[in-house]
Order: sequence, then C-alpha cells, then structure tokens
Amino acid sequence: MISESIGVNALGNMTVGGADCVALAKQYATPLYVFDEALIRKNCREFKASIDEYYSGNGMVMYASKAFSCKEMYRIVGSEGLGCDVVSGGELYTALSVGFNPENIMFHGNNKTPEELEYALKSGVGRIIVDNSTELVNIEKIATELNLKANIMLRIKPGVDCHTHDYIRTGQIDSKFGFALENGEAMEIALKAAECKSINLLGFDCHIGSQIFETEPFCDAAVIMLSFMNDFRAKSGITVSELDLGGGFGVKYVETDGALPFKVFMEKVSKALKEASERLNFPIPKIYIEPGRSIVGEAGVTLYTVGAVKTIKDVRTYVAIDGGMADNPRYALYQAEYDIEIANKYTEPKSFIGTVAGKCCESGDLIQENAPMQPPQVGDIMAVLTTGAYNYSMASNYNRLCRPAAVMVNNGESRLIIKRETFEDLIKNDI
Amino acid sequence: MISESIGVNALGNMTVGGADCVALAKQYATPLYVFDEALIRKNCREFKASIDEYYSGNGMVMYASKAFSCKEMYRIVGSEGLGCDVVSGGELYTALSVGFNPENIMFHGNNKTPEELEYALKSGVGRIIVDNSTELVNIEKIATELNLKANIMLRIKPGVDCHTHDYIRTGQIDSKFGFALENGEAMEIALKAAECKSINLLGFDCHIGSQIFETEPFCDAAVIMLSFMNDFRAKSGITVSELDLGGGFGVKYVETDGALPFKVFMEKVSKALKEASERLNFPIPKIYIEPGRSIVGEAGVTLYTVGAVKTIKDVRTYVAIDGGMADNPRYALYQAEYDIEIANKYTEPKSFIGTVAGKCCESGDLIQENAPMQPPQVGDIMAVLTTGAYNYSMASNYNRLCRPAAVMVNNGESRLIIKRETFEDLIKNDI
Repeated sequence: MISESIGVNALGNMTVGGADCVALAKQYATPLYVFDEALIRKNCREFKASIDEYYSGNGMVMYASKAFSCKEMYRIVGSEGLGCDVVSGGELYTALSVGFNPENIMFHGNNKTPEELEYALKSGVGRIIVDNSTELVNIEKIATELNLKANIMLRIKPGVDCHTHDYIRTGQIDSKFGFALENGEAMEIALKAAECKSINLLGFDCHIGSQIFETEPFCDAAVIMLSFMNDFRAKSGITVSELDLGGGFGVKYVETDGALPFKVFMEKVSKALKEASERLNFPIPKIYIEPGRSIVGEAGVTLYTVGAVKTIKDVRTYVAIDGGMADNPRYALYQAEYDIEIANKYTEPKSFIGTVAGKCCESGDLIQENAPMQPPQVGDIMAVLTTGAYNYSMASNYNRLCRPAAVMVNNGESRLIIKRETFEDLIKNDI
Repeated sequence: MISESIGVNALGNMTVGGADCVALAKQYATPLYVFDEALIRKNCREFKASIDEYYSGNGMVMYASKAFSCKEMYRIVGSEGLGCDVVSGGELYTALSVGFNPENIMFHGNNKTPEELEYALKSGVGRIIVDNSTELVNIEKIATELNLKANIMLRIKPGVDCHTHDYIRTGQIDSKFGFALENGEAMEIALKAAECKSINLLGFDCHIGSQIFETEPFCDAAVIMLSFMNDFRAKSGITVSELDLGGGFGVKYVETDGALPFKVFMEKVSKALKEASERLNFPIPKIYIEPGRSIVGEAGVTLYTVGAVKTIKDVRTYVAIDGGMADNPRYALYQAEYDIEIANKYTEPKSFIGTVAGKCCESGDLIQENAPMQPPQVGDIMAVLTTGAYNYSMASNYNRLCRPAAVMVNNGESRLIIKRETFEDLIKNDI
C-alpha cells in the first residue's frame, strides 16, 4: 500500500480512512479531494513524539500550510499542538480566522510585501523569517512605527542542497531564498539585524529541499547552521537560541519511493546537534521543523469519474476524467508520479495501461502517462493517490472549471471541509 | 515593439493603450492585468475582414475564450460580431451571463460531462464539437429526452500536427482529442452520427496546434478535411456544409517570434480550399476559425512591483516581484519566453540581466531567467508583456495569494473588469 489510509471493503471498493470511495463520489460528486483525518493526526503526533523522544521536547513542529491550507487544516494541526508556517497574508488570514494562536505562527517568503509585514506584526505572529535585506529594513521601520519589537529569524543558505537522492554541497547559493553563508552575506545581515532597535533576532532558518529521502544532508545542514550560530556569537557577542531546520521530508507517491519515518531523521539530527553543541561549547538550540507534504500528502486522494476511454490502436489508450491539471497541475509542472486505482475495481489486477487525460482543452493536460490500473470503463471512479499536498493548494479555474469540494474522513465518517465552487463563484469578481 | 499596444509618454513611462503603467499601478495596485481594448477590437475586425476579403464572408470567427474568459471579453467579442468557443459549463455560463447569443457559441472539449451536455443543449448552443463516441451516445440520449435536435460537428485529427516551426504529418494520431482519419475512426463515427435521430451532423472540426507561424500545415489540414468531407459524401450520401479550422495562430512573445497577420493565412487557405473544392466538385464549405491567443495575447500586460533585488555575486540577480506563478504559470509550465520592461524606466537602455522571481515559496516560481531589462530597484513597476492569454485564465491561489485585478484600457482611459480577490474570497468556501 502507498498509504495506510487506503483499504478495501466487503464490496471490493477502495476505501480512504474507512470510507467507501464509490459512496463518497456518489454523495459529494466528482472531482473530489478526500483526506484521512486519522492519518493527518497520526503524522502530527509522530513528528511531535520524535522531538520528545530524541531531543527532550526542545522543539516545535510547524505545519507548512502551503501544502494544504484551509480552515479545517489549521484547526486540526492547532488541536494537535503544532504551530504552522504561513507564506502569505492569505494563509495568515485563514489561520487567524479559526483562532490559531499567532505566537505559534511563522511567516516565511522571499518577497513579503510591506502590507503583509504590517499585518503580521499587528497580528502578533511568533516569528518572521527574514529573507532579504529590504525586508529587514521594512520590518525595522514598521515595528518602530507600531512601537513593538519584531521577533525574527534569518533564512540562511547553508551550502547543502538536496533535491534528489544525491545531494550537493555547492551551487545552492543560486537560490531566490535567503542569505548565503559562504560569501559572507549571512554574517553581514545577521550583524545588521542585531543592531536594529525594533528587531529581536532569535535565530536562523534553513531549508535544504523537497522530497528528501536521506538523513545525511539534513544532519550536515544542522551542524553547519550551529557552527554559524557559534561564529555569530564570536562576532557579535549574542547567543541566539533558535534553529529552524525547515521541512522537505519525502513522502511516497509510488511504491518505489523510499520514504523514511521522521524519527529516523530526528534521531540522527539530535545526535549530530548534541555532538556539535558539545564540541563548540554552544548551548543546544530550540529547534523548529516544518513538515507540510509529510503531514498531509499521503492522507489525501482525489476521486474522478471516467468520462471516456479512447483506445488508439498501436498507440495508447486515453482515459478521460472529469478533472485534470486545473485541480492537479503537478504532472504538467513536474511530471510527478502517481499511483492510479479504479476504486470500484480495487481488488482486480492492474492489467491495463492507460494515460489519464484531464478535461482541459490542452494536450498537456495529463495526470499520468501509460500508468498501470484496473481496466477502466466509462462511469468508473478513478482514485489518484497521494494528492493531499500541493493539489488543492495549486488548483486553478483553468477552462473555468469549478474547483472540487474537499471532504475529511475519520473512521469511515465523512464531512465537507471545502465547498465545491459554483458557476456563480466563477463570475463573482467579473464586472 | 512586441505589441502595438505599448508606447511611452512624456514622463518616460511605458503606456498600454495610451495609459501610463505607473499610474495604473498606483490607482489599482499590483499585481495587475492590463488589457488594451482597442487592440482586441482591432484583432477581432482583422479576422473578420480577412474572411470577408478572401472567402466572400462565408465564415465566422469564434473567439476561443479559454485564452481569457470573463464577462467583459464576451461583451467585447460579441459586440464585434464574433461568436465564441467555450470548453466547459463555466465558460458557457459566463458567456450566457452577459447575454451572448447561444447560437454563436461552439462547445468544445475532450470530456464534456453529461451535465454539461444537457446544459449546452438546453441553452441552445450553436454547435457541440463531439470529441469521443461516449459523448455522441450521451448527446443522442439527452437530445432525445429533451425532444430536440442537437447540432454537432465532429473533431477530426487530420494527420497534420504543428507544434513548432516544423510540422509533422504522422504521429499526431497520439492525441487525447478527436477521431483519427488514417485508421478509419473518423469515418466510422461520422457514419454513426449520421444515423442518430436527434443529432444533426453539420460538419467537421480540426485543430493542428498552438503558436503556428507557418501557413502550409494550416492549408494542408484544410484540404485534407475537405477531402474527408468528400469521402463522407461518397459513403453516406450526405453533403455537410461546415468546416471548423480551429485556431492556434502565433503571437509575438519576444522580438524573434515571427507572427504573421491572419490575412496571410486566410488568403492561402481560401485559395487552397477553393482549388480543392473545384477539383473534388464539392461545395465550398462555410468555415469557422477559432483565434484565442491571437485576439488577446499581445493586448495584455501584467504589472508588478519590485519588492527585492538580490544580487548573488558571480551567480545572478534575482528580482522579486509581488506576483509570480500563481498569476502566470506559463514559465513554470512551458519555459515560456517573455519580454520584461521596467515601466518607470522605459526609455532607459536594457543594460541589466535579471531573473524575475515570483513570491511563491517554491524555487521554480520564476517568470523569466536571465532576461534583459532596465536596471531594477525596489519599488519599480515591472511590466511583463504579452500576458493577455493564458495568464488570468490559468491563475491559481497557490500560497493563498489573491488573484489580481484586471483593467481594460481604451484610449488612455481605464476601467476595472475583474475585481481583485480579497482574503474573504479565499475562505469563502472553507467550512
């Protein structure tokens, strides 16, 4: 199984969190995003427990809400004792709209507008992660005007970049995010921040990539960051106490993805940080980790109805669904791999190879090419797995398609968490 | 100039349709989509005039509204005497919401749902372009239930594919759209359609690609389609009278794009069709053409505010703007080329090379890499040109960014046509 959310019932239908996908499709219509609350909560708890077990609880898990941002997600992660990170005024607004504790919110982003910074400071956001020098100047100015002290961290490029199973220790300097260590930028801005009267520099942040499957680059980055904190102490006399290690922990999209439980990361990074701390005689910092995809990715499934099956002899078969790149642009953008199931034929062998075509008027609107699946027919319910992250959040109204509804399932029971868009919604802002 | 909409005023600022871009940014805020109504209308008229001049007016221009669909666009193209093509219930709803004549609407798409087909038939849509055999069955069933006769055309793959300056005459059979000529599919479905009691088969449709810069493949496809109409007459005794030649006419994104005026296409395709018609002794058909990008692409510009300029020594400079892949995903999707201007420095030489970075928390959120521009500073207004097509229509709320406003400019005067999204809009459907 790709995800422990997935099961099968007595009817031979695929289930998510115990709920029959065919029944869900009938009740809520398709396309439909389905999320398993139990798995989301389990993931939240495992991240927290790992910090408790290996790092004496001296850390905090911040859900990276760009993966899937909606009111109910902030309620769920908040109720599990997690903080969250937001990357825009809109995400912040959504979190605050359900009473999320602003102190537990971190505000990221490479180009926060002055309006967003003012909104964040007025809202009492816990930490602003400063990404460029203009932002530092803006925060100092706005905080001074508001007569408050802004709690910030600085985003640093640690010189470790992990985008694939291999990783590189140079080159990542070429990123739109943060300040580079190796050319002195990071130290320069840190010293500048330390002098700002309305700014409270609490620590540093790094983020080494997405879909990380190896612990070594993660540990290397942590140690590099601690050494930088030590260097900063030497230069400034200030001992900062916080280290944000970012997210990027890999999830399973297909069987061959070798995702590790987070506790494996946490055990190793704790050991590495403790050793470095002792060696440098630097106090062990409070850490933050920012899982997004790894909280919600495998907990989500998208259901579609098959509308046409077009076999082109000696070429291939297109299986047309009632959604596509408008609700899931990840294949068009990244050629992302997905596991495809026919939910009402889940127990049958996947003896068929089909190309899943979306309904947008664009040749590139495909969800998967030449993928194994149970033999599809018009009217079947197709499930695309591991769509919990970066699907709803990236959805558009391309071709003026209405964005799908989303439901949360718990122990076989479902509830609507995002209403399906209507035609009226589409023209609401048109004049 | 990339587009005739672009000019410069006495202040040295870039203008669109005579309106000062810096003033527009100030009045409406950024990001902002700006459209030049005069150029849109001129394009509409040139397409119409070409058919009048070279094809005795025996044709109709159908605006392919997926390029940019909003109420005001349907009003404008309708007032110019154009029809439109829609590809979803949502586009149809938008068109009808401003009183667009349903008889002048064509409904395209590779997977229209039964609900969409019923909506289209009840609305009296002019033509449904049938894409697969399930759809034919569904239309026959719904039309029979509604006791009406459905006017349809069939989408055919003519065996000509034009995606680049070269074109190929095989291979395009591998498409999710339509029925292939070469393997007999097309004839088979045409004969089947002719037997449906509640269906009126009026003709055939083809579409050979996007951003076409050469006339030859377009003419070849037209002649192939006419030969097919002739073959169909021989097999069925039915002389269909309509031929939809699709769209895909290239526009200028950068100086090196060699877009042709449509009249060059029309002159050649008219000649080719008339010759073939004489040779085959087949009546000259009424034609439809479906320009989308070529009506609106060059008439649109997006304005952004520069929020940060990050120069990484010996690497490159990132110029961060207050929008990005959420309002324009075409670089992320297709590595699309764009011309970049600093609107408030339009008369200065483009002596600077910068990478335009969006504000989404994603390394891939770039609008252009290493592009020439006037030297940018924080607070400058950046203009990205030729964004009239497939920008607003593909926009998302990724990172919970609000979709920008859109304004129509005419002769220096501007008016809002799409309101900027608000934070309230973002959570409207959240429960």
